[in-house]
Amino acid sequence: MIISTKRGTPQNEIKKIIDGFEGQGLQVTLIRGEDYNVFGLVGDTTKLNEKQIAANPWVESVTRVSAPYKKANRLFHQEDSVISIAGDKVRIGGREKVAVIGGPCSVECESQVVQIAQAVKEAGGDMLRGGAYKPRTSPYAFQGLGTEGVLDMVKAREVTGLPIVSELMSEDRIDEFVEYVDLIQIGARNMQNFQLLKALGRINKPILLKRGLANTIEEWIMSAEYIMAGGNENVILCERGIRTFEPYTRNTLDLSVIPIIKEKTHLPIVIDPSHATGNYRYVEAMSLAAVAAGADGLIIEVHTDPEHAFSDGAQSLKPAKFRETIDKCRAVAAVVGRRL
Amino acid sequence: MIISTKRGTPQNEIKKIIDGFEGQGLQVTLIRGEDYNVFGLVGDTTKLNEKQIAANPWVESVTRVSAPYKKANRLFHQEDSVISIAGDKVRIGGREKVAVIGGPCSVECESQVVQIAQAVKEAGGDMLRGGAYKPRTSPYAFQGLGTEGVLDMVKAREVTGLPIVSELMSEDRIDEFVEYVDLIQIGARNMQNFQLLKALGRINKPILLKRGLANTIEEWIMSAEYIMAGGNENVILCERGIRTFEPYTRNTLDLSVIPIIKEKTHLPIVIDPSHATGNYRYVEAMSLAAVAAGADGLIIEVHTDPEHAFSDGAQSLKPAKFRETIDKCRAVAAVVGRRL
Amino acid sequence: MIISTKRGTPQNEIKKIIDGFEGQGLQVTLIRGEDYNVFGLVGDTTKLNEKQIAANPWVESVTRVSAPYKKANRLFHQEDSVISIAGDKVRIGGREKVAVIGGPCSVECESQVVQIAQAVKEAGGDMLRGGAYKPRTSPYAFQGLGTEGVLDMVKAREVTGLPIVSELMSEDRIDEFVEYVDLIQIGARNMQNFQLLKALGRINKPILLKRGLANTIEEWIMSAEYIMAGGNENVILCERGIRTFEPYTRNTLDLSVIPIIKEKTHLPIVIDPSHATGNYRYVEAMSLAAVAAGADGLIIEVHTDPEHAFSDGAQSLKPAKFRETIDKCRAVAAVVGRRL
Amino acid sequence: MIISTKRGTPQNEIKKIIDGFEGQGLQVTLIRGEDYNVFGLVGDTTKLNEKQIAANPWVESVTRVSAPYKKANRLFHQEDSVISIAGDKVRIGGREKVAVIGGPCSVECESQVVQIAQAVKEAGGDMLRGGAYKPRTSPYAFQGLGTEGVLDMVKAREVTGLPIVSELMSEDRIDEFVEYVDLIQIGARNMQNFQLLKALGRINKPILLKRGLANTIEEWIMSAEYIMAGGNENVILCERGIRTFEPYTRNTLDLSVIPIIKEKTHLPIVIDPSHATGNYRYVEAMSLAAVAAGADGLIIEVHTDPEHAFSDGAQSLKPAKFRETIDKCRAVAAVVGRRL
Repeated sequence: MIISTKRGTPQNEIKKIIDGFEGQGLQVTLIRGEDYNVFGLVGDTTKLNEKQIAANPWVESVTRVSAPYKKANRLFHQEDSVISIAGDKVRIGGREKVAVIGGPCSVECESQVVQIAQAVKEAGGDMLRGGAYKPRTSPYAFQGLGTEGVLDMVKAREVTGLPIVSELMSEDRIDEFVEYVDLIQIGARNMQNFQLLKALGRINKPILLKRGLANTIEEWIMSAEYIMAGGNENVILCERGIRTFEPYTRNTLDLSVIPIIKEKTHLPIVIDPSHATGNYRYVEAMSLAAVAAGADGLIIEVHTDPEHAFSDGAQSLKPAKFRETIDKCRAVAAVVGRRL
Repeated sequence: MIISTKRGTPQNEIKKIIDGFEGQGLQVTLIRGEDYNVFGLVGDTTKLNEKQIAANPWVESVTRVSAPYKKANRLFHQEDSVISIAGDKVRIGGREKVAVIGGPCSVECESQVVQIAQAVKEAGGDMLRGGAYKPRTSPYAFQGLGTEGVLDMVKAREVTGLPIVSELMSEDRIDEFVEYVDLIQIGARNMQNFQLLKALGRINKPILLKRGLANTIEEWIMSAEYIMAGGNENVILCERGIRTFEPYTRNTLDLSVIPIIKEKTHLPIVIDPSHATGNYRYVEAMSLAAVAAGADGLIIEVHTDPEHAFSDGAQSLKPAKFRETIDKCRAVAAVVGRRL
Repeated sequence: MIISTKRGTPQNEIKKIIDGFEGQGLQVTLIRGEDYNVFGLVGDTTKLNEKQIAANPWVESVTRVSAPYKKANRLFHQEDSVISIAGDKVRIGGREKVAVIGGPCSVECESQVVQIAQAVKEAGGDMLRGGAYKPRTSPYAFQGLGTEGVLDMVKAREVTGLPIVSELMSEDRIDEFVEYVDLIQIGARNMQNFQLLKALGRINKPILLKRGLANTIEEWIMSAEYIMAGGNENVILCERGIRTFEPYTRNTLDLSVIPIIKEKTHLPIVIDPSHATGNYRYVEAMSLAAVAAGADGLIIEVHTDPEHAFSDGAQSLKPAKFRETIDKCRAVAAVVGRRL
Repeated sequence: MIISTKRGTPQNEIKKIIDGFEGQGLQVTLIRGEDYNVFGLVGDTTKLNEKQIAANPWVESVTRVSAPYKKANRLFHQEDSVISIAGDKVRIGGREKVAVIGGPCSVECESQVVQIAQAVKEAGGDMLRGGAYKPRTSPYAFQGLGTEGVLDMVKAREVTGLPIVSELMSEDRIDEFVEYVDLIQIGARNMQNFQLLKALGRINKPILLKRGLANTIEEWIMSAEYIMAGGNENVILCERGIRTFEPYTRNTLDLSVIPIIKEKTHLPIVIDPSHATGNYRYVEAMSLAAVAAGADGLIIEVHTDPEHAFSDGAQSLKPAKFRETIDKCRAVAAVVGRRL
């Protein structure tokens, strides 16, 4: 950690700062500049609080040099993590097959989800997604079928054999998800629901952690770190677009996260082109781009009747288009050294 | 609601759309343009799902004309709402006194919070803030004292008589907060924790709802609507800065929310200049600005020893500076027709 | 165009509004709602000023249904435009070969740019880029070699046969660029330098128009429209990342522009992964993604000695890596139906 | 400047880096950490290129400790700069009267601007604003009256005695502006038109430099530095809102720039609440806030007939409302120790 102090900081204040850090077992090097003094701290700085240090009125700036994450950090874990789902039916990460997860935004009824699951399977999908608990901006919008929706997903798994992914919104449903769901999705709005993250650290199921709407990559990794620090290292990261000023898309899909996540961490990265663009017409192009850039998986909305979907129909692919997208992605995967 | 269809949409598709809406009891007017057709829908459109409509491949765009909120909407509730706290000890909103809430970011121990509470009271503050459960980006950072911290706040209230504000992070602590806390704060990261918002709709305590880091004003009002639709109309909105590209401040304080919230809703609006700027040097200027623009309250971090605070020391005022800020704000309030 | 008026707008105000639009030759349809009235205008609304209409205190909102661009609009020009450069040596757009433009950020001297040009050619590049006039945030930073730099580029073209691309920053250098440069680049900071755009409309050279740092896709197309409305329809759009809150990359590369630009306009779209990410380690992944998504070209920084580059060395590829990137991109292009 | 290198950087690479900096006359201190090495550089680092340093593959990060601006830096110029306009008729900055600039967005004709100038003067305004050259997103929108508009402004100055402010969009009109205009405005879209900034450095007229739509405060100060480094130190900064995701306002007015600009620089700061909010209903509240926070001036759009204005009518105040706003601002100024 690097700390700079203001011009004219009195000698005794500088001494106090040095003594303070040395008292915490850190090694301090002082660099005297013309207008500023700079301190370099060596040792375990993960517990230091940057904002507390900055509260000293003589301090000009505080800069962290080493990353604040440990468990997720590739520096301390060189090999790619591969996350095993549903008793190794699907494996995500490393050199494994690029996983394709398809399904409706919301579960509407058993027959709908079973029918879509079959279409997903026939198109070559690896897993089924479907929301039973829906985070909706409006209290007047459809909120999801709850437990009934989860059980409809279970039925679809029985029929097709596809492992299931669904979004968990609250701690009180963890037992239900541990029992029935194969991969627990944490949505963008809950990425910093720290209470929920801590609870996920105490279970053993794999977690698909979506990036928050306006969260930095570092904050996102820190949320993975919450789960991992609690003991559950089965975390898959999922980019679903960030909020910008652009109105032609629902969000701006940030594909540069793919090489960055692979550089900074050892965790797999999955891309959601459906929520990011909010428009089925752009899903194929963004899926191809994600695979070309090295994504470990795709999560795509599929619906047999998008015009009558309960939610997010505008971004859903029909089964034929989903199959075509998978086929094209498979060709791209092959030339970048991956299977799909 | 206004729906436009693409150039070349076949006649029978247009008829299908019209029939669909009429079947839902809406009145449809069709405007034929050169390159587009436009439909206007009249009736109760709050339950219509814009995204489902947009899923129709012939639909070009969907625009909502009327606001999606009802309970919070000033259109249906012309008078300002005044929220009563702690048995009317403090009243926020309307022409009431501009409320000043002061206190530490985190409760550290009983003597710290009692000492700060006394300083807040002597400076002219109306309420005491203090965090017992802390949303921290890092799992390795101080997470708050929990129940012990809440009880320390209660002790500070006993000593000073100041009502207390504290942040609730999860549903499982609602009973504790209903019993001990006078104004329940919902932090930016939980603004769209819809499960928690629904639970707050079932209690009767006033809620201080902070705006999310990257949430629009409409989404923020919709989160208030969640609580109000559940039956708890005691909602105060709190702006604490939004995330932008600017690194000189922690967030960008958006003071234009003050006239906008007063125009669109009947709810009170409180400003948090401490979290917004992240820097004690800018708190006074932003407090004065907020009062001048018509804010109903201020929530300011105060610490007797910011350099040793457990969190956010960099943005805390010392008691003498807090008192000076209140005195200046009082003078501004007087000339804009408010008391403080 | 759709205009909604506030609840309680008097009958005579509504009549005045209708009369006003009809006086401008527009057809007006009125839809009476419960809380709002809505007007639909049919006719040529491109000259209407939304903000002037919104100035009427009875007006609640103004929404444009049809796009404000004409020349660039695919609605009126169904086939892809193919832009011919340097007497048809390079053709960009449609089903043409995906063009690869490589070269240094800044021209440093003749031997440097000739050497890099040779490396670009050997690696399979189609054109040479190099900046002679540099937009630098600091007045104390290297500002480019000016005319000397342009002539160095010309020399490199003589040696290698590669057409050249360079950034024009001001109207007073247009003659120089028309004489010497094959494709004139307009940088992000000048995307809305309307004076310059108008001047470009009066020449005949192809223009590579970069998207502004925080400009919407619609504004970007409108800047192309400025050039095209002036008479120069040879415009190529170039995405180079937008400004967001994310610090791990210099900008956030928005690849969703590829399908959107192709849907809304008939113009070619080129991607600049070097400026977008600001980091050579992420350039290959983003290049592959761009080609997979359907980009018509790539513009990549290449330097033989990035550590001693005068500008932007951090984002430059060395020749061997550039060749490897091209080879991988060629394989991706093949499977998405393009040559490169 | 602080440079950190990656874990495992070989000893000889570290030596090369040290030798390189020492060869440039800088003093280098090396701090050896566990996972990183950190170098501190002391000396004149303003000419160092951060990006070139970062191009070294062993370099992890580069952080500038001292600000990159000199002329504008308060560190080297402790007293507030006061800018004198029109032969000292108006003085902006320091403890001078808070200046109020009013007038139409666009000059439409002589009688319009004379009439508005009289209203501005009667209401207590200090200067007249009016656009003769207009930066418009659409090539089909009204582009301003040009020289004729400037001369109409001159006429309004003759009639009222108010100094005039107008926007300069291109270098070729500098002579015209030096002759006729008292304060030259540089718009947000030209904040980084470096060619134009350099030309402004060679004249002597005061400049009102607006912040770019998505520019950081540091970049904005650097643009002032361009003008000042060229020899013209008469720069006034003007905040007009930044682009965010919020659609209820045209831009987000960032009032925290007021204390920040005063801390980092010695230049005056003026606020434009009209362009920032884009809505006349929010202008008064934001004007009061700006004055309370310490702004040195306000620039407000005023129009006698906003519904028929050629541009930006929606954000213009009518004269009576402008007068009322000034009166309220005067009362606020008085209690924060300023005149208006």
